Amino acid sequence: MIATVSRKAHFNAAHRLFRADWDFEKNQEVFGKCNNPNFHGHNYELIVHVTGPISKETGFVIDMKILKDLIKLEIEEAFDHKNLNLDVPEFKDLNPTAENISVVIFNKLRPKIESNLELKITLFETPRNSVTYSGQ
Amino acid sequence: MIATVSRKAHFNAAHRLFRADWDFEKNQEVFGKCNNPNFHGHNYELIVHVTGPISKETGFVIDMKILKDLIKLEIEEAFDHKNLNLDVPEFKDLNPTAENISVVIFNKLRPKIESNLELKITLFETPRNSVTYSGQ
Amino acid sequence: MIATVSRKAHFNAAHRLFRADWDFEKNQEVFGKCNNPNFHGHNYELIVHVTGPISKETGFVIDMKILKDLIKLEIEEAFDHKNLNLDVPEFKDLNPTAENISVVIFNKLRPKIESNLELKITLFETPRNSVTYSGQ
Amino acid sequence: MIATVSRKAHFNAAHRLFRADWDFEKNQEVFGKCNNPNFHGHNYELIVHVTGPISKETGFVIDMKILKDLIKLEIEEAFDHKNLNLDVPEFKDLNPTAENISVVIFNKLRPKIESNLELKITLFETPRNSVTYSGQ
Amino acid sequence: MIATVSRKAHFNAAHRLFRADWDFEKNQEVFGKCNNPNFHGHNYELIVHVTGPISKETGFVIDMKILKDLIKLEIEEAFDHKNLNLDVPEFKDLNPTAENISVVIFNKLRPKIESNLELKITLFETPRNSVTYSGQ
Amino acid sequence: MIATVSRKAHFNAAHRLFRADWDFEKNQEVFGKCNNPNFHGHNYELIVHVTGPISKETGFVIDMKILKDLIKLEIEEAFDHKNLNLDVPEFKDLNPTAENISVVIFNKLRPKIESNLELKITLFETPRNSVTYSGQ
Repeated sequence: MIATVSRKAHFNAAHRLFRADWDFEKNQEVFGKCNNPNFHGHNYELIVHVTGPISKETGFVIDMKILKDLIKLEIEEAFDHKNLNLDVPEFKDLNPTAENISVVIFNKLRPKIESNLELKITLFETPRNSVTYSGQ
Repeated sequence: MIATVSRKAHFNAAHRLFRADWDFEKNQEVFGKCNNPNFHGHNYELIVHVTGPISKETGFVIDMKILKDLIKLEIEEAFDHKNLNLDVPEFKDLNPTAENISVVIFNKLRPKIESNLELKITLFETPRNSVTYSGQ
Repeated sequence: MIATVSRKAHFNAAHRLFRADWDFEKNQEVFGKCNNPNFHGHNYELIVHVTGPISKETGFVIDMKILKDLIKLEIEEAFDHKNLNLDVPEFKDLNPTAENISVVIFNKLRPKIESNLELKITLFETPRNSVTYSGQ
Repeated sequence: MIATVSRKAHFNAAHRLFRADWDFEKNQEVFGKCNNPNFHGHNYELIVHVTGPISKETGFVIDMKILKDLIKLEIEEAFDHKNLNLDVPEFKDLNPTAENISVVIFNKLRPKIESNLELKITLFETPRNSVTYSGQ
Repeated sequence: MIATVSRKAHFNAAHRLFRADWDFEKNQEVFGKCNNPNFHGHNYELIVHVTGPISKETGFVIDMKILKDLIKLEIEEAFDHKNLNLDVPEFKDLNPTAENISVVIFNKLRPKIESNLELKITLFETPRNSVTYSGQ
Repeated sequence: MIATVSRKAHFNAAHRLFRADWDFEKNQEVFGKCNNPNFHGHNYELIVHVTGPISKETGFVIDMKILKDLIKLEIEEAFDHKNLNLDVPEFKDLNPTAENISVVIFNKLRPKIESNLELKITLFETPRNSVTYSGQ
């Protein structure tokens, strides 16, 4: 029997959407007010989905406490109350759009979760905007 | 890298579930209190999901501002504060169930979104009832 | 010891904001798209707050099951899947704004709740608009 | 045209995670505070997803009122205000993890829903923890 | 300048509503299915409101981190994953209705918060039922 | 008849909690990770409450569309996608705690709302932290 378990977490961070190799006008045209050079920010809501067989022994796909602690260690401690552009090395040369943040989160968690389990990331940038990424 | 971006919108509308080619008793039997001839209404919550490659240039699947404006123009301005049965031409001969509203929304948005992007619609009629449609 | 207990309920209804003694232009000027003559509608979320002493005998301010049944009988059965303007006698000559709906709900519930208990009504017309009324 | 309709329900229940064939230390090591012998509890939020063709006759995949009544009869009346371990026969020898509860709900509903319709269960144990199961 | 700051927390617990000095029939009549002798449970959502002057020095009414840690220590560690009737001494002879739980939480927090600050407790037993208590 | 109408809005912003007249160690001791010199950010959810008599003429306390436009003009356009410390003049010498942001919002809106109407501000900094201020 295959099931998906989902665990919700959150972090608050500042970011700015822009490319260093574009001038201000080009950045403004593409990224609009998200290009504010002084940064703006979000309460990011993260949902981590793990799919795999339900263990006959424990009744778990994955121990939710282990998943919770993994998200805390790998994502919340790295991103919470940070400036994604300045404080988080993965975004040194990567524009921190919600899509790219989802990819970075996936890539950080993927090696920490057993390879027989599927992983999917949903990231809400605001209550109205979200992204889903599953490594494809 | 393929991701899904989702954008939430909403509109308030009146509707009545019934078929003009059925008599009142038959409509009442199938649609119950949703067949009130004086109409009732909902705050519809709409989520539009767009799936495609993350652009290396912008870090976007689709510019969320463009998606937001498209939903506003095509759906919110056409449906908000309207009587779906009387004011919206697509429902002149189509029963405005949540399923059919989802199909109409999909069909209105599909030609406006690049054909390499997949589209899926989720429509909440109430906080407890929703429908998902992806053109299949 | 005095506490407030709150119970949430909901109903779906159509309405139109207008005054029969004003012409269409005046109604349009004041009520805008809420004046659509074909009606529009909402999922109303209702919260009923009752304040009074905690009974030493039961540990209740009021039995939540009794409050739930009272709201169902007096409000949900009268308003749900109705056109407030056409189907609900209280709005025959009263504009069904969220404010006035709250007053009508208060006036319907007040005589059914013991007079030593205070009553307050909160009504969400949409997730972003709400009204609170307590009989003052 | 194929759509998915989803209906939300809820029930409150007590449970304890443990295996009778393990000693207390082993149960404590695997299930931690969820192994409290005196039980703890949750407000479970259940979403039942049904996928199938939209009927040309009714505009429905399934009549939401029938689905609502089915969930009430089969799940809410069996689980609500119960101790899952002691009062619900399906968990007599099955550890009531969220994964296993989802499987039991699926297995109870599957024979009651027409076989041409697909069924999927989402169960929130808390606002932060959920499980999805579709019979695979 | 006087403001109210509010902090949300949660705990999961089992309980049973009954009085040991009443027989089963009397308990069943008053508490209905909440009187299940095997217990049921809830995800309690707690909101702690603290009112007082905004400090000119810090811009805080109370340091939210201190409030969060206080709620964790005094309430979450005492109530989470517990059976309120059996595991929590305050309910040894007190019926754990939402009203009485709110009073117990207020009484546990009141001496830990400076006396010039007002305290109010809101407790959601389910998403539809809540209680507010402020020590009156 | 006196009622309170409430309107929800939101804005995304970056901020840093610190005092320029304290050294880094003192700021770190008091404001912890909120003192990140590179800023972090939030999706602020704002609720504006206006209390006054229900107009016999319109059935409104205040026209919700006017209130919505006022919040958009005075608050959303001034704060959204901004760095509160650097881009918003009111915080040039004022620490942008949730308490102080609430006071600034109150002070900006108070002169724009008729003096016979009472005003109250609720600001959610995160889904778990909020502040209420009413000018006292």
